[in-house]
Amino acid sequence: MPRVLILVRRLGQDERRLVEEYIGDLAEPIYIDDGIGDEEAGEAVAALVATARNPVVREILRRARNLRFIQTLAAGVDNIPFQDLPEQVVVASNSGANAEEVAEYSVALLLAAAKRIVLLDREMRRGIWRVEYPSLIKGSTVVIWGYGSIGREIARRLQPFKPRIYGVRRSGGNDDYVDRILRPEEALEILPETDYLVIALPLTRETRGAIDSEVLRRLREGAVVVNVGRGPVIDEEALFDELSRGRLWAALDVWWVYPSRRGEETFQDLPFHLLENIVMTPHVAGTWPGYREKLLKHALENLRRFLMGEQPRNIVRREDYI
Amino acid sequence: MPRVLILVRRLGQDERRLVEEYIGDLAEPIYIDDGIGDEEAGEAVAALVATARNPVVREILRRARNLRFIQTLAAGVDNIPFQDLPEQVVVASNSGANAEEVAEYSVALLLAAAKRIVLLDREMRRGIWRVEYPSLIKGSTVVIWGYGSIGREIARRLQPFKPRIYGVRRSGGNDDYVDRILRPEEALEILPETDYLVIALPLTRETRGAIDSEVLRRLREGAVVVNVGRGPVIDEEALFDELSRGRLWAALDVWWVYPSRRGEETFQDLPFHLLENIVMTPHVAGTWPGYREKLLKHALENLRRFLMGEQPRNIVRREDYI
Repeated sequence: MPRVLILVRRLGQDERRLVEEYIGDLAEPIYIDDGIGDEEAGEAVAALVATARNPVVREILRRARNLRFIQTLAAGVDNIPFQDLPEQVVVASNSGANAEEVAEYSVALLLAAAKRIVLLDREMRRGIWRVEYPSLIKGSTVVIWGYGSIGREIARRLQPFKPRIYGVRRSGGNDDYVDRILRPEEALEILPETDYLVIALPLTRETRGAIDSEVLRRLREGAVVVNVGRGPVIDEEALFDELSRGRLWAALDVWWVYPSRRGEETFQDLPFHLLENIVMTPHVAGTWPGYREKLLKHALENLRRFLMGEQPRNIVRREDYI
Repeated sequence: MPRVLILVRRLGQDERRLVEEYIGDLAEPIYIDDGIGDEEAGEAVAALVATARNPVVREILRRARNLRFIQTLAAGVDNIPFQDLPEQVVVASNSGANAEEVAEYSVALLLAAAKRIVLLDREMRRGIWRVEYPSLIKGSTVVIWGYGSIGREIARRLQPFKPRIYGVRRSGGNDDYVDRILRPEEALEILPETDYLVIALPLTRETRGAIDSEVLRRLREGAVVVNVGRGPVIDEEALFDELSRGRLWAALDVWWVYPSRRGEETFQDLPFHLLENIVMTPHVAGTWPGYREKLLKHALENLRRFLMGEQPRNIVRREDYI
């Protein structure tokens, strides 16, 4: 029976049972929590990875010389060390697993910034009855940059608010939930009339720093930038600069600097936390009570496809990452 | 030509032009900013009122012995001194004027509380990377208590999030945007499975304190109470008690205590501002850049109906208020 490395820490009994249920008839799962020996790593044909940012996980992957398939739990695969992986290793993301939930959170962030809710709450707690007019979504222009499964669910939830909505993706095309799909180069033209720029891009070679000072400077005064993709998709200094000058608002769930261990005090390299015109949350868009079970099932379904000899879904293009 | 009292302060030139445009051919508008003499007040047949909380406005209304119609700018008429008005005075609210905008804000508040955005932002600003799982709207149960024009627009905006939605109104009936309309007494039964209770009730004799400790105690643990109606619809102590015990979350835009003048430091009688599980905003749901023009047009349309001898819309039931 082929071996599969389950590189997800602290799986509970119920979660291990899910693994058995989905792939137990096709493969022998080896759990990182039980310790993974050289021989086991060397024989494994596939791995399920939570995050390959962890050095222990990276070392196991390095030793897995017969690996042919990596399935991630996350929708983003930017933490996978593509440069260290042999060419025959196919990597599949967990795209779509939490699209609806991340979309809920994205709309919540957009509205929190548009309506100035965090700022007004802060003032109320100091006894200050500060009147700031909330911005409307109705009649506004929303650009969803990165129009995949998450972007689409965002558009769907914004529709009854009656904005104009543009989706941006390199493949172009059409979609029912938006007024138009634009290619990235076409999107530049629409920025001067954009009130809300929602970024749902994966972090790739091409998207790193794609939201740069040119993009930000083109946005309409007072526009809100929402990021639920990956921090480094935005040029950090350029955004800080626009926010400092008070020209834009932002609502960010993804960052450039993350804590390296639990409980560590963590600030960004630039003092975003001192700005009034930003909503800051600690990368929680893809979590909710019970989220891991859903991600696990979605990932295991795809892992099963690989083990059955079928074509897995969500295979990423290696050349996008190296 | 009949006289109409325009009891809205600081109307700009454009706004006065609107008044002329809508009713100038039918009546002579007398503006509060220009001073209103005894004779003018005594002759007026109608009044447009921003808020009758103001003692000057109350005094003018008292002297307006020929008044037959009051049109308010606000959707709520709870500030009108019904007890001092002769029975023949018909009062019309501005219901519907800002239903879509208030609904946007209501959804923003609901999401800000559900997703813990204000709390997480506060922690991030202190360098604390605190992970709290956002609650989902998908699959949850939303009760919209007070299902009028605002409630309906809220339901419409929540639909693509896929919750079950119940509207509560005393007249019962059906509506496309909700799973069911309940009468208040039926709504009690659904509270134990309610995750989000959105209150969009006017403040009347019947609704004052309607959301009492019994209603709140029936709610599911962790439920979020959103109020965009009027503060005193909720029993203040009962809500504070539930919040203090951490059993519920709240997101309030309307209050029991308001500042009596601009810039005054204002806290509630009970220290809601010290609680973590509440989102607090200063009655801004019905405001947005340019909101007064829209409210004014909607109110003037109805005032015109009265002056034309037609039946005005949104006439309130006097017996609901005294």
